[in-house]
Amino acid sequence: MGGKSMRWADGFIGVDWGTTNRRAYLIDSAGKQAGEFEDGKGILSVPAGGFRAAIAEIRDKLGDKPLLLAGMIGSNRGWIDVPYVPCPASIDDLAKNVVWAGEREAIVPGVSYLGDGRADIMRGEEVQVLGGAEAGLVDADALVSHPGTHNKWVVLHQKHIQSFRTVMTGELFSLLKEHSILSDLLQQPVEVNDAFRDAARHTVFNEALPAELFSVRASVVLGKMKKEDAASFASGLLIGTDVRIGLTVPTGARVAIMGRPELTRLYSAALGQANRESVQLDGEECFLAGIREIAKRI
Amino acid sequence: MGGKSMRWADGFIGVDWGTTNRRAYLIDSAGKQAGEFEDGKGILSVPAGGFRAAIAEIRDKLGDKPLLLAGMIGSNRGWIDVPYVPCPASIDDLAKNVVWAGEREAIVPGVSYLGDGRADIMRGEEVQVLGGAEAGLVDADALVSHPGTHNKWVVLHQKHIQSFRTVMTGELFSLLKEHSILSDLLQQPVEVNDAFRDAARHTVFNEALPAELFSVRASVVLGKMKKEDAASFASGLLIGTDVRIGLTVPTGARVAIMGRPELTRLYSAALGQANRESVQLDGEECFLAGIREIAKRI
Repeated sequence: MGGKSMRWADGFIGVDWGTTNRRAYLIDSAGKQAGEFEDGKGILSVPAGGFRAAIAEIRDKLGDKPLLLAGMIGSNRGWIDVPYVPCPASIDDLAKNVVWAGEREAIVPGVSYLGDGRADIMRGEEVQVLGGAEAGLVDADALVSHPGTHNKWVVLHQKHIQSFRTVMTGELFSLLKEHSILSDLLQQPVEVNDAFRDAARHTVFNEALPAELFSVRASVVLGKMKKEDAASFASGLLIGTDVRIGLTVPTGARVAIMGRPELTRLYSAALGQANRESVQLDGEECFLAGIREIAKRI
Repeated sequence: MGGKSMRWADGFIGVDWGTTNRRAYLIDSAGKQAGEFEDGKGILSVPAGGFRAAIAEIRDKLGDKPLLLAGMIGSNRGWIDVPYVPCPASIDDLAKNVVWAGEREAIVPGVSYLGDGRADIMRGEEVQVLGGAEAGLVDADALVSHPGTHNKWVVLHQKHIQSFRTVMTGELFSLLKEHSILSDLLQQPVEVNDAFRDAARHTVFNEALPAELFSVRASVVLGKMKKEDAASFASGLLIGTDVRIGLTVPTGARVAIMGRPELTRLYSAALGQANRESVQLDGEECFLAGIREIAKRI
């Protein structure tokens, strides 16, 4: 592993530690992935003062190695509140600003954006996006979509995060599915079918989301939509709106969609309705690329 | 009470029966309100086959009178599923299409809209809107906003509901307040302050709601917004968006806002940011006007 820092010469454990779960990867001295696990111990399930124990658990499973931690573990609800690195932010900036929570535990900072009269923050996605660019999986100049609970539209310029914008799409769909008047209509799995494409095409070009959502119920009640199409239609409305917001950035750069395949395929389909091509990338692969690149630089 | 039908000559009870509560009003033989009560027995709290008992309870409280019922009581989750009257719909159309659930119990139909490639439904608001117009509280040609769990924008033309559009504003605010990542930021009461007005002015003219909502959290985290302003700001974003959708109807008609004062004042403030004047009307007064006018016609 050329240029690798002595700190991590015997291998290390990289952790993508989110709000509701965590994924840990053992990277060996040759820079190869040599083990991994995922569990539901997101930061919200760790009691106050419990991070030392939560860390010990990771070492029990993957070995007594130094740890490089990214994601919500560095937030005000995590182990240590690590200051955000402002845009434009490169992989070097992330490496320079890690905070040592212990002698062998470093936390990667998130990235903040202030501009256009608005504020935005991310923690975790920056490792994947900049890692993907460093590994050549993403173009040096690109528009990246990173769907999940919150989608992040990231403008990448010369391998720097130039700006980004968060859209609450995944969370809104969950709220509607779990708790809203649409709940009983949204239990079917979402498919890329005509209902999804019609809805996405509509909202890519039209803006009335909180009205369109109610129309799902009205259409089913009046017999204009099959109940089994409602979930796909509602998802199409939300993701089409998301894509419209993402594409307001005036860039012709290729769109890279990063994340879990069951989500990236939906965004790819919605982008297709906006006549934009895209490539789908595996978020895990990008994370591994990013965490290795940061380790090299510390 | 001139022109009053013989059916209701000795007075009657009008009921606005919603999903989560009901309000009943005793109207005496002179057409005056002579009693009322409100309770939490919305249709969802009435067990299957329990509507006869729920009706008896109303008579126990207000007297053994005929009943004229409006709202969700006529839905597929209510007592009887009363077919919607399609737009354009007048107060005569409502009266002509009441369904008798018993010998002395009539249910007022809701109104449906199919047009502009979309579907919409209402149950309950039609009595208030057409009642308000009949009583001269609302112009014969008007744009009516009826905020609540769902806001209804109603285009009134020569005292007919010409078209309408539902916006899920109130429900979205509740979902965000109760269950979302913004929850801890939205517990303060909503005020018409600078935060509310700034947010409403922004979304009256800009469309990116699911991104703007996340910016509330990012702004607080980055110290750009006071936590105590977050609820008013988020409410301003939602209601400003709602107003933008409502004003897409090309009408110069005066805007009447009908409902509970704590909501109508928010919509009035947001309409002000769009440079549209409005009048605020008490929804209860409009309901009483409407239910009396329907009784006259049956």
